[in-house]
Amino acid sequence: MTITPRLLLGSGPSPVPQRVLDALARPTVGHLDPQFGAIMDEVAELLRTTFGTENRVTLPLSATGSGGMQALVDTLIAPGDKVVCGVHGLFGERMADALGRAGAEVVRVEAEWGRQIPAERLIEAWSADARALFVVHGETSTGVAADLEGVADAVHADGGLFLLDCVTSLGGHPLDLDAAGVDAAFSGSQKCLNAPPGLAPFTANDHATEHLQRRSWYFDLEAILGYWKAPGEGARTYHHTAPINMIYALHEALTIVHEEGLDARWARHATAHEALRRAMSELGFERLAPDGEQLHPLLAVRVPDGLEEAPVRTKLLLEHDIEVSGGLGPLAGRAWRIGVMGEGASLEPQTALVTAVADLLGRDPAGPLSALEEGWKSPTP
Amino acid sequence: MTITPRLLLGSGPSPVPQRVLDALARPTVGHLDPQFGAIMDEVAELLRTTFGTENRVTLPLSATGSGGMQALVDTLIAPGDKVVCGVHGLFGERMADALGRAGAEVVRVEAEWGRQIPAERLIEAWSADARALFVVHGETSTGVAADLEGVADAVHADGGLFLLDCVTSLGGHPLDLDAAGVDAAFSGSQKCLNAPPGLAPFTANDHATEHLQRRSWYFDLEAILGYWKAPGEGARTYHHTAPINMIYALHEALTIVHEEGLDARWARHATAHEALRRAMSELGFERLAPDGEQLHPLLAVRVPDGLEEAPVRTKLLLEHDIEVSGGLGPLAGRAWRIGVMGEGASLEPQTALVTAVADLLGRDPAGPLSALEEGWKSPTP
Repeated sequence: MTITPRLLLGSGPSPVPQRVLDALARPTVGHLDPQFGAIMDEVAELLRTTFGTENRVTLPLSATGSGGMQALVDTLIAPGDKVVCGVHGLFGERMADALGRAGAEVVRVEAEWGRQIPAERLIEAWSADARALFVVHGETSTGVAADLEGVADAVHADGGLFLLDCVTSLGGHPLDLDAAGVDAAFSGSQKCLNAPPGLAPFTANDHATEHLQRRSWYFDLEAILGYWKAPGEGARTYHHTAPINMIYALHEALTIVHEEGLDARWARHATAHEALRRAMSELGFERLAPDGEQLHPLLAVRVPDGLEEAPVRTKLLLEHDIEVSGGLGPLAGRAWRIGVMGEGASLEPQTALVTAVADLLGRDPAGPLSALEEGWKSPTP
Repeated sequence: MTITPRLLLGSGPSPVPQRVLDALARPTVGHLDPQFGAIMDEVAELLRTTFGTENRVTLPLSATGSGGMQALVDTLIAPGDKVVCGVHGLFGERMADALGRAGAEVVRVEAEWGRQIPAERLIEAWSADARALFVVHGETSTGVAADLEGVADAVHADGGLFLLDCVTSLGGHPLDLDAAGVDAAFSGSQKCLNAPPGLAPFTANDHATEHLQRRSWYFDLEAILGYWKAPGEGARTYHHTAPINMIYALHEALTIVHEEGLDARWARHATAHEALRRAMSELGFERLAPDGEQLHPLLAVRVPDGLEEAPVRTKLLLEHDIEVSGGLGPLAGRAWRIGVMGEGASLEPQTALVTAVADLLGRDPAGPLSALEEGWKSPTP
């Protein structure tokens, strides 16, 4: 099996550092081996810091980010529950879908793809008889960050749950779950954390876990917590065999995040986003999200009028070994989604991307590259 | 992160060959990269051969083996369906549990832990109004293989589905799903395939997929098949981001299985099981399963009377770096479960185990080791 390495600047997976790949390939040990238990404790603690939470229930679920969404629904939502669901892109849409399948009454709050849902519209849609309000913090389909201002207070005033998808924002876009009043959230390993895909970091506070649903055997959080015990809670009980090596990789990836520090990392992502935005703008690709609504880890841009984007994207992948993602849904053929995630949020890979795109368009790369470098010289506040 | 390597001779994970760890650590690429698509096609084809099936629907699900069980329930069983469920150990018990959570009417067919369920008892419990019959092919909690004789004919006569858990048997115990008339089955990556835990090989025939349930978003087989397309079915559609590196590892693990060949591999597991059974018997550990009911990849033995097993097992792990598993449920404290899986089904690791156990019991290893070697010299038919 020969793999040609690619520079992963799409919507994820993102570039996986060699340190993380090395950790992934450490010798597999048993899921009840005490040395693995110690790694689990550290992963849980590193995840707490990354999420900005003190929740005891903080762990990586044995599934991809979408599995985290399923677990959130299976474990916190009962059939008949009313759930207010923000929909302004593919990932809000699929949450509404998953909630509907679970028998929830879904109240949709929509915004155009590429725009934020104003927090006041979410609050307006909230009602005392609702069980939960859900919103996507980082819409990977449009590169838009959510407005969370005041949402938690409104929801909590009626005893409701505030639920968040932070798949693409975790570790790359400012987020402090406890400060934002989020009751439960899920993420993915393959975005700003730079681990391979396959794990869903998950967290829930005591309010969220008061009435756990147990429809699913695999995503039965109560049973999973018997294995993901906190230190001092006694021996771990087998539920399912943990994905040992993936958890090694996540441990290393989170260690890298904390060596840099969250504040520095968020600032770097903001700078990288703005620098690349300027460079791509020089090439005729304008950002979809208006100023102030952008998600730093994902730059979604409109493709210049008249450009057939798919063949360019294919050449970028096959001739330059650089991956960017196309648009989804209403944006198919009209947008590119460029990852600014972890290792990908730095000057060197962005230089490679801008140079290659200029080449494929038959443009002089000098202007765009100079915009990129200027962007990096003036850090975004 | 320092990991002390262990010899994994428990109930799984099993020893992961260096070739598989190397594959695991290959550069991550995108889930829609054509070079990854080619690997997916090969994995699906290798899995078909391993399962003994021509089912178009054959793929690794993005979850552990238990997730494969959940997917089987979520996708094939509707609330109110009557399902005959064999229960003769922990894994039959948990399937009954999962079916009950899904709203199925569960008809339990039980046998003592450590014994087979005679096929005629399963057939007797079958009724024309049932939707499916489920049995665990390799009960990892007791080391017993299932008797499938005639079950498919009885179930199919009424249009029912024959469902199988082959987590511990796949690639280590004779199994040909199509010949046995199995309609759908799941497995795990970390048993006889020797990949790390984290993937659930899954297969289903056209009969099983006629009326797919779509309660779960994550385990929506119809949507997953839009991504796991067969060659000639057109472009893959994104459902969730596949666990890229784990699939590299599974590809390499399946390649190793097929370099050896299934018949040779099954024969080796049978020989390894019998050789180790003789050696452990010399040490006073007698197999739970009677002759003819044993599961080759897992030797479950009764702990000698008067031996406090947990401290011995702990010393085996911490002082000799060898993992074996304790008993579960009614067998807790009374049994050991020793893996005979893939790389673990060979003379060298078994010699290390027998030597270490003899040492911990203060016994002369000569007799047991000679029994082991004799066993390897006379291949089990």
